[in-house]
Amino acid sequence: MDDNTIRRKILGVDPGTNIMGYALLNTELNKSEVEVLSVLQMTKLGDPYAKMKYIYEKINGLIEQYHPDVLAIEAPFYGKNVQSMLKLGRAQGIVIAASLHAGMEVYEYSPRKIKQSITGNGNASKEQVSAMLCRMYPISESIEYLDATDALAVAVCHHLQQKVVFGKTKATNWKSFITQNADRVVK
Amino acid sequence: MDDNTIRRKILGVDPGTNIMGYALLNTELNKSEVEVLSVLQMTKLGDPYAKMKYIYEKINGLIEQYHPDVLAIEAPFYGKNVQSMLKLGRAQGIVIAASLHAGMEVYEYSPRKIKQSITGNGNASKEQVSAMLCRMYPISESIEYLDATDALAVAVCHHLQQKVVFGKTKATNWKSFITQNADRVVK
Repeated sequence: MDDNTIRRKILGVDPGTNIMGYALLNTELNKSEVEVLSVLQMTKLGDPYAKMKYIYEKINGLIEQYHPDVLAIEAPFYGKNVQSMLKLGRAQGIVIAASLHAGMEVYEYSPRKIKQSITGNGNASKEQVSAMLCRMYPISESIEYLDATDALAVAVCHHLQQKVVFGKTKATNWKSFITQNADRVVK
Repeated sequence: MDDNTIRRKILGVDPGTNIMGYALLNTELNKSEVEVLSVLQMTKLGDPYAKMKYIYEKINGLIEQYHPDVLAIEAPFYGKNVQSMLKLGRAQGIVIAASLHAGMEVYEYSPRKIKQSITGNGNASKEQVSAMLCRMYPISESIEYLDATDALAVAVCHHLQQKVVFGKTKATNWKSFITQNADRVVK
């Protein structure tokens, strides 16, 4: 596996229509580093259209500035009502489509999966997730918005998933093992 | 009122995740003309990500090619379940954000409002709406997809709304009447 395969810049996004957290995580097989940790603050924009325009332009701006390879985004929790689902879908759709257009890979993770992979407990609180991330990376505990650490959490979750995949023997059956290990086959 | 105020190119969109109808309607105060009437056919794309990317690129392509001034889009019907609301929100968000980014005005109309303004009956069927549009414009009755005429319907609905606004006396009180008709005030 060459370096290009394992070096990835992950854009983590916690989609929201008032505050959208985002983080940029530079990863290699066994290390990762936080490059950016911030939020789009949209509370004062008021109008939902102004928010959508802002998300579109900011996300395209981030992609242009940092050239991430992957988008890792929190999947919505289906307990929400239809109206908040529509709003969240709009915010999500903009982020996902802009990322795909830029040639990035896109992965979604459920809140439960994210909490599980960071803390080992799928029911952990936002504060517990944030506290664990502050132990993993040199980031301040006093981060203004938990939405920023939520975004970092989904990026880290994706990174940990990839490590699991890379760590496993990739061959899942005899045929693929032979294909991947042609030099080991006694002719 | 000068010509630039009343001449508008309206992009009508009926958002859907399998088939998205779109229409371009050139309007002036008392006339309108269908320039484009078509659909984005996404059934075969399969993957929801492929569909979102396709919507993003096609909508941006349409905006670049035709330079519409206004987006008129069908608002979702809240009777749907949360999962289809999320999908629809994603599709909608992409179209709305791309339009806003291009400096277009954006208007949403409920299915009921659209049917009401075209046929006079808020409970009209898709077929009745389509039949009325075929009487209004030189378009074929055998349009392959009703989603295309649904998109035209929302564009026409917006045009009719604007006519109502233009038709009304704009002054809503004595003060604004004086401001707007300074030449009629006896000094």
